[in-house]
Amino acid sequence: MTTTPPSPAPRVTIKDVAARAGVSKGAVSLAFNHRPGLSEATRDRIFAAARELGWAPNPTARSLAGRRVDVVGLAICRPARLLGLEPFYMEFVSGVESVLTERSCSLLLRLVRDLDEEVALLDAWWKAKQVGGSILVDFHAGDPRVPAVERSGMPVVAVGHPSLTGSLTSVWTDDATAVTEAVRYLAALGHRRIARVGGAAAFGHTSIRTAAFDEAARALGLAGAQMATDFSGGAGARATRSLLSASGEDRPTAIVYDNDIMAVAGLSVAAEMGLRVPADVSLLAWDDSQLCRLTHPRLSAMSHDVHGFGAEVARTLFEVITGRGGGSHPVPTPVLTPRGSTAPPRGAGHV
Amino acid sequence: MTTTPPSPAPRVTIKDVAARAGVSKGAVSLAFNHRPGLSEATRDRIFAAARELGWAPNPTARSLAGRRVDVVGLAICRPARLLGLEPFYMEFVSGVESVLTERSCSLLLRLVRDLDEEVALLDAWWKAKQVGGSILVDFHAGDPRVPAVERSGMPVVAVGHPSLTGSLTSVWTDDATAVTEAVRYLAALGHRRIARVGGAAAFGHTSIRTAAFDEAARALGLAGAQMATDFSGGAGARATRSLLSASGEDRPTAIVYDNDIMAVAGLSVAAEMGLRVPADVSLLAWDDSQLCRLTHPRLSAMSHDVHGFGAEVARTLFEVITGRGGGSHPVPTPVLTPRGSTAPPRGAGHV
Repeated sequence: MTTTPPSPAPRVTIKDVAARAGVSKGAVSLAFNHRPGLSEATRDRIFAAARELGWAPNPTARSLAGRRVDVVGLAICRPARLLGLEPFYMEFVSGVESVLTERSCSLLLRLVRDLDEEVALLDAWWKAKQVGGSILVDFHAGDPRVPAVERSGMPVVAVGHPSLTGSLTSVWTDDATAVTEAVRYLAALGHRRIARVGGAAAFGHTSIRTAAFDEAARALGLAGAQMATDFSGGAGARATRSLLSASGEDRPTAIVYDNDIMAVAGLSVAAEMGLRVPADVSLLAWDDSQLCRLTHPRLSAMSHDVHGFGAEVARTLFEVITGRGGGSHPVPTPVLTPRGSTAPPRGAGHV
Repeated sequence: MTTTPPSPAPRVTIKDVAARAGVSKGAVSLAFNHRPGLSEATRDRIFAAARELGWAPNPTARSLAGRRVDVVGLAICRPARLLGLEPFYMEFVSGVESVLTERSCSLLLRLVRDLDEEVALLDAWWKAKQVGGSILVDFHAGDPRVPAVERSGMPVVAVGHPSLTGSLTSVWTDDATAVTEAVRYLAALGHRRIARVGGAAAFGHTSIRTAAFDEAARALGLAGAQMATDFSGGAGARATRSLLSASGEDRPTAIVYDNDIMAVAGLSVAAEMGLRVPADVSLLAWDDSQLCRLTHPRLSAMSHDVHGFGAEVARTLFEVITGRGGGSHPVPTPVLTPRGSTAPPRGAGHV
């Protein structure tokens, strides 16, 4: 059961929350208005008490210097149709929402066509006091949002590698190390021809993964082909079909994907082409949503807690809003989770 | 490639949009401020011209009687974790965003714990002029949002069957007819024991499907078991395992699911239990996201254009905001799309 019935329980007040958390009513108010003066532990205790009691503050009374503090912005520069196809963003948003809900905050979500539109939008949100801060994603090299936000002083968290995000507070995953680990593992299994089905080349994180893959393949003396896609299942299927259509000597025996939906599509293409996974070809997914455990065989993956990543980004943004943020925050590097879709290639001397 | 590089093209102005659409600058302004006085065809031409030229209005200048018109609210009463697991909401939101983007609008997204919290939130959004209108989803019988919104006069679109949504403008799918068609089709293939793995019982749309399934099974003299879940893949897997663990005479030969992620999970459980799909058991999914075409065999489904549904909901909301809305708007009924996961049961006299 996912919802409670509409019949109301006895009315919970701010006093009940304060009592349960062992603090004053004023402290509860400070926490929900994102004002400084409380330790992180006290804040967490207050949010937990409110959550347990089902209490939310009166939303009309919440602002900081006339600015809304109960709204956080997120602009995404992707076509609407693709947004619905990739599990990553939904899991990321669900992680962000898990923290926002706890603090009775909303997410202002906007799709933009290009970064110029995003720069104008962020500026308008900030000038109109519509948001208390914003989450920025999908950084490019020389990203125009960096100088724009440095000028406006809007509290933001940049989701991206510190090499791309200037002086902004950043939360990032070490994609280069994870790609290197994936390539080394497949090489250790005996694979000599490894391909990567990557994301859109314009994104900084894609470039970082592409460079790391090239470097790892070169260091190990492997043949390493790479293809760029738009992250959709359809594009992953087409790339896989193209890779597996190469003649014997050129055909990769292992493929690494930049997300999970493309790996699921790749598994289906292997079946369609009469190739067994992992006997004929090994497949390794990325992100590792529940999809990877629902296929047959289950997909090996570079597991990344995307929900937890979104939650960490939201928590960091609240720190920036209350003036306690800054710096660069790595989250745990994706870890290799072998399941049924990776094995030594045939004839590699292993079983 | 999903994004354009940050280097700006020559600046596009409202004059260019007006010229391309063959209207005055004032008409472009009317369209983007959601004011009456333009035909639907003219509006569409203006939005198309703006989209083609990549033009967006200045966001600080947009309001209607002091109220923001460039923000639309959506509250969802589900746990954050589940939101990230179900393709339905992501596709729905992507459809809503496809229309919002065209009109340079943002979505204010909020997860709530119960309907009382949602009622208070809608009231606060409206009083604070934070949104121009809202989308309401997941209606219950006797839903408290109906009288609350009837009182406040906030422009809304209710996503739900007119029997649940009172005098509110509604957009809905005919779930009862679709469930009946699914049961009749499986019966026509020769299945006599059909099960349904349904959603959360508290939702009105779940009750409507449950009643229609019972009615269809009774009319055809079939054994029809039903199980309630939280829509997650894990719950779908558990329900399938339980149904397929029944002894021969009681085991269903066909299972209908309330979404696609549960059907994908069901397919995996069948494989895990050594049952062939569709030879030993037929599976029929609902919603039909790209997932159903990525499994092996591909999943038969009651196909529902969820992205288009979200877009229709957003378009209807803009009509309500400009005073042209009202009534109940059925969208196309989900249609049966047979693929590789449904067939006559063994021993039914068919091949």
